[in-house]
Amino acid sequence: MPPPPPEWVKKLTPSGPQGSELLKQERGRSNLPVEELSTFLFGNEARERKQRILKVLESDEAFDKSQNYFAGRVDRFETALARAKRLAQISAKNNWSYDEHYTAVDLISEPGPYGLHDSMFLKTLQEQGTPEQHKLFLEKARKYEYIGCYAQTELGHGSNVRGLETVAVWDPSDKTFVIHSPHLTASKWWIGSLGRTANHAVVMAQLIINGKPYGPHPFVVQIRDLKTHQPLENIYVGDIGPKFGYNTMDNGFLLFNKVKIPHRNMLARFSGVDPNTNKYIQPSRATLVYGTLTFIRSSIVMQAGGVLARGVTIAVRYCAIRRQFQDRDAKDQRGETPVLNYRMVQVRLLTLLAATYALHFTGKAMMELYQENQKAVNKEKTEESNPRGAGPEETSPGSDLVADLHATSCGLKSLASSTAAEGLEVCRRACGGHGYSSFSGIGPWYADYLPTTTWEGDNYMLTQQVARYLLKAARSVLNGERPTNDTTRILTNFHTKRDIGAAFDIGSKDEDIVAAFAWRTSYLTFEALRHRDVEKKSWNELLVDFYRLSRAHSQYLVVKNFYATLSAGNTRAELSNETTALLHKLFRLYALHTLESEASEFFTSGACTVKQIQLTRATAVMRLLEEIRPHAVRLVDAWDFPDWQLDSSLGRYDGKVYEDMFYRASQLNPLNDVTINPFPNDKTLFQSKL
Amino acid sequence: MPPPPPEWVKKLTPSGPQGSELLKQERGRSNLPVEELSTFLFGNEARERKQRILKVLESDEAFDKSQNYFAGRVDRFETALARAKRLAQISAKNNWSYDEHYTAVDLISEPGPYGLHDSMFLKTLQEQGTPEQHKLFLEKARKYEYIGCYAQTELGHGSNVRGLETVAVWDPSDKTFVIHSPHLTASKWWIGSLGRTANHAVVMAQLIINGKPYGPHPFVVQIRDLKTHQPLENIYVGDIGPKFGYNTMDNGFLLFNKVKIPHRNMLARFSGVDPNTNKYIQPSRATLVYGTLTFIRSSIVMQAGGVLARGVTIAVRYCAIRRQFQDRDAKDQRGETPVLNYRMVQVRLLTLLAATYALHFTGKAMMELYQENQKAVNKEKTEESNPRGAGPEETSPGSDLVADLHATSCGLKSLASSTAAEGLEVCRRACGGHGYSSFSGIGPWYADYLPTTTWEGDNYMLTQQVARYLLKAARSVLNGERPTNDTTRILTNFHTKRDIGAAFDIGSKDEDIVAAFAWRTSYLTFEALRHRDVEKKSWNELLVDFYRLSRAHSQYLVVKNFYATLSAGNTRAELSNETTALLHKLFRLYALHTLESEASEFFTSGACTVKQIQLTRATAVMRLLEEIRPHAVRLVDAWDFPDWQLDSSLGRYDGKVYEDMFYRASQLNPLNDVTINPFPNDKTLFQSKL
Repeated sequence: MPPPPPEWVKKLTPSGPQGSELLKQERGRSNLPVEELSTFLFGNEARERKQRILKVLESDEAFDKSQNYFAGRVDRFETALARAKRLAQISAKNNWSYDEHYTAVDLISEPGPYGLHDSMFLKTLQEQGTPEQHKLFLEKARKYEYIGCYAQTELGHGSNVRGLETVAVWDPSDKTFVIHSPHLTASKWWIGSLGRTANHAVVMAQLIINGKPYGPHPFVVQIRDLKTHQPLENIYVGDIGPKFGYNTMDNGFLLFNKVKIPHRNMLARFSGVDPNTNKYIQPSRATLVYGTLTFIRSSIVMQAGGVLARGVTIAVRYCAIRRQFQDRDAKDQRGETPVLNYRMVQVRLLTLLAATYALHFTGKAMMELYQENQKAVNKEKTEESNPRGAGPEETSPGSDLVADLHATSCGLKSLASSTAAEGLEVCRRACGGHGYSSFSGIGPWYADYLPTTTWEGDNYMLTQQVARYLLKAARSVLNGERPTNDTTRILTNFHTKRDIGAAFDIGSKDEDIVAAFAWRTSYLTFEALRHRDVEKKSWNELLVDFYRLSRAHSQYLVVKNFYATLSAGNTRAELSNETTALLHKLFRLYALHTLESEASEFFTSGACTVKQIQLTRATAVMRLLEEIRPHAVRLVDAWDFPDWQLDSSLGRYDGKVYEDMFYRASQLNPLNDVTINPFPNDKTLFQSKL
Repeated sequence: MPPPPPEWVKKLTPSGPQGSELLKQERGRSNLPVEELSTFLFGNEARERKQRILKVLESDEAFDKSQNYFAGRVDRFETALARAKRLAQISAKNNWSYDEHYTAVDLISEPGPYGLHDSMFLKTLQEQGTPEQHKLFLEKARKYEYIGCYAQTELGHGSNVRGLETVAVWDPSDKTFVIHSPHLTASKWWIGSLGRTANHAVVMAQLIINGKPYGPHPFVVQIRDLKTHQPLENIYVGDIGPKFGYNTMDNGFLLFNKVKIPHRNMLARFSGVDPNTNKYIQPSRATLVYGTLTFIRSSIVMQAGGVLARGVTIAVRYCAIRRQFQDRDAKDQRGETPVLNYRMVQVRLLTLLAATYALHFTGKAMMELYQENQKAVNKEKTEESNPRGAGPEETSPGSDLVADLHATSCGLKSLASSTAAEGLEVCRRACGGHGYSSFSGIGPWYADYLPTTTWEGDNYMLTQQVARYLLKAARSVLNGERPTNDTTRILTNFHTKRDIGAAFDIGSKDEDIVAAFAWRTSYLTFEALRHRDVEKKSWNELLVDFYRLSRAHSQYLVVKNFYATLSAGNTRAELSNETTALLHKLFRLYALHTLESEASEFFTSGACTVKQIQLTRATAVMRLLEEIRPHAVRLVDAWDFPDWQLDSSLGRYDGKVYEDMFYRASQLNPLNDVTINPFPNDKTLFQSKL
């Protein structure tokens, strides 16, 4: 570490006004009850849990974050591994629940080498293994005697699972499977926890019996020796190298050269091979398998609001402190203006602040929809009725619920993760030059989050699922079928009123704003349907329309869920009228800003007039920014992020921005230990690269 | 380095079709004369120069790039310094010109520790130093005996130079300046080449004479010992720490504790202190100083097309190789479709491909405008006429030319650098999962480029300069003054025709597309003027409108310059009709895609009808994507990037994508040398963090 600074430097303080003073003033200007709102958002139990776990982690040197932004790839990985081990120990010692464990992971806020073991490896063994296989693999895995990963993606194949090249050939002679990689592109790739950590893998491979392919199936394969941790024979495995982010995780590659595994290593709960007849055993319930992806997508939607809120918290606090230039019209020309007072900053940050709340409430609704579906599935499992039995609250056929869940999770995953990722970059830039420093805490967080826009379904690809669902729904409406859910209801409503046209009072009625979003979605749906069914346009030609359609529909869902939350009984019960009123302003800001950003679709569909959009842009949004501005800092405080979690100089709760930047740069920065020879013509020193 | 792979791995090849085959086919499908187009874009001299310099660098181990994506911060900095020294040696030995030196820098493609010495330090000494000061400082600096930086930005102050806190107090008793940092926020911050490398700095400090402040002025201060390279007494200097990118550069901090420097160290070409009278000497030509910023902004515009083209080259080549799923309507259902055939990919990548050409031609036009202005300034200098003498080609007052140059450089810098930065991220994501790997070559390049959107004027702040200029121009039109340049011409045209309205045939007439952009700009200008002058709205309230206005005006300039280039005589002379026709398609794609993306402004202004926009979106753009698609690979080839410069697995000219990814991951990746203990409960090994 660098030497301490001289005395005269230690005496220096920032020129006034001090950041701590400014944030105090900000908090003084608003009477928003932060505690009340936090509790409404997360509940007392979760908030108490976070504080309790935080104490444990903060006091454990294994989780000291001070070198996170400085260390290189290898060091960062080794530190992350040490933390993963420590967390496993603490978790076991305190016998932490799933929620407690993930609260810790969330606070540590870095991808860890046990990440895929704890999630997909255990989950797949659990869900797709037989009771015998649970004994064989799952129990050891739970005790970290087996450490595993989920090996699906390959160098040459991502989203299209059917295109996987790795094969598992059934050998009737000795009742084994031969796992093999016929090509370089068959190499497993991007597999989390595989590069250096895992000794087992669930490998997705094309099952082949007697020369006939049966599609991808899961196989448990040991890949490293349990004593030496060296790769087993005919297995070539390693880390795939540095990435834009996620460098604390050892994403790996994996090749097999005719590796034999016993019959019992094929996860056989849903399908398998009969060792006596050498025949394939048909899968019983494919829907459950595909349920896993839906759960992951729903979780991504659930988390998106919080992911974005970290960036918004940092940017709002710093922009309340950072002062630059003077308002040209300001009477008092002493001192500079906090940048958060500039409309150009407000229109970027406060709209994202509104988006964090919008995404949070939509995430909750998404999860409820998922639970509802699970209930339906379980009900059906116990009843052993039709494979997709109707859910309790759902009068329509269950298939309808499943399809709706699938489309909703695809559309919202795409919109929510794109909004969060792009929003974080907006927050980083809103911090000006200092946003570029790692100490801002936004860049590294953004870089680690980015893959979310690609995995579990690329955000562009996914929109086709939504379009397919909406086109199907629109066809049913044209066939005169009665509405079975909200989607068919809004489509039917549009279809009956389309000639009369709409006249929504978006200026004053919140429910009319929701209706305008529903109208636009419905219009785009029937337009797309006409292109496809009447004009017979190719699917490929329509992909851009489908993307717009999915986006429009998902924005409708977000606006609808936000409005529904504010109208719900428990909201009025848990929140004061002032707080609810402020949330209504955030609702309008999110909805109206979205509306004017997508203006052309709103008036083309006749949902709004050009005049209405001009008024929204020039007046309504501007007024909302002005009204929300005084509450900005308290509204981010309500997200309740501990400084330890944010690990940001700019986002500190106490506003000591410049002191912290300077401390990290001068005292924690290893490069300041290096003395160099700056001259180009010193041959001797040149050899040493210094 | 990791051990070589086993024999059975070495034998593996990608499953067909091979990337090399696919790129051959792509190039076979188009007859675009790549050489001819490259020469038209860059000229023979520059192309020959690049090949010549490339040979020198490739054959020198100092510039070996193979560990760039793996090394940590300290190693990367040390390597970058070694390269900077080596380049200085080679440059001197071969007596390279400015162009040759910067061709090398461009090929090396990483910020280096001499970066700010070679540019701002030398430039400031040159432009603001007297002949005596050139002898004192510049000559030594040119020989790298003094290595310097330009220290302006401070921890607490960025864009607003007048707010700088560092002071230079004139001491009449001993005719010295006392350089001092009164606060922590006065610390210089972000200063390139300062952290570890520089031994001198040009420090911008508030000049104070006899208690009276005279604003920021440049002072030459030695900061490190020339023998030991240790900081001098009462100077605290170091590196500011890791950043989102730019980590090969040692951006630094710098604090002064009453450091005395002699009178001769104030750069005195334009202003100074008379040591006898102790009086301030007024600046003679402020416009020249401010000319430097304009030059840097113009260069940013000039480079933006090439910056973006690197990402587009990589993404287009990889998307022509990467295959995923099948076109749902495709007759032939064998094999998967190259993703570049998907409309959703085309609408992202081919529009950016068009943007690279649009930005390139605008960059050239920007530079010509700058040169024209320089001629005017020089002419005036020789004539010693009024401080802003008229330029040769310019009949209007020179002030008009200067103001136009300033506004144009601000608006285009903002639009061009935002387009390039955001476009690179679009390219990265279009590569799917592999785009996230550092081996894609896009992420690291994007991360290094990002500060360009903030420095030399934040891209949001700058738009106010454009708005101010346009409002002034509009007022002159309302006052009935005759047009003096293109801006006042289009405003006057709109003003006279505004009641008749427009009827542009954007479907078939290229010049009408340009006119539609001019109309929209003019409409937004007079709207903003009404808000400001009639409705008396505050400047702050209008910032969002000003941003839109600047963006609209800059897009008009890009479209106008693109069209002008294609209509120019030399273009027809140098390019075949087929090539010109293809460039016209790129022009239309850029213009029409921009038009439909900004649809609401185009019909609100009456530049287009809603119907025209729907047709543009649904038909015109889609047809252009289809027509340009076969030429995509050749169109990126014309940008003529050597593989060595791109340093990308995905963007290789020969298409050996997967072989290269696998080689880098398995053979160059240091993490694969590390064997760990994966179990959480091995106390002994836990100590070692492994």
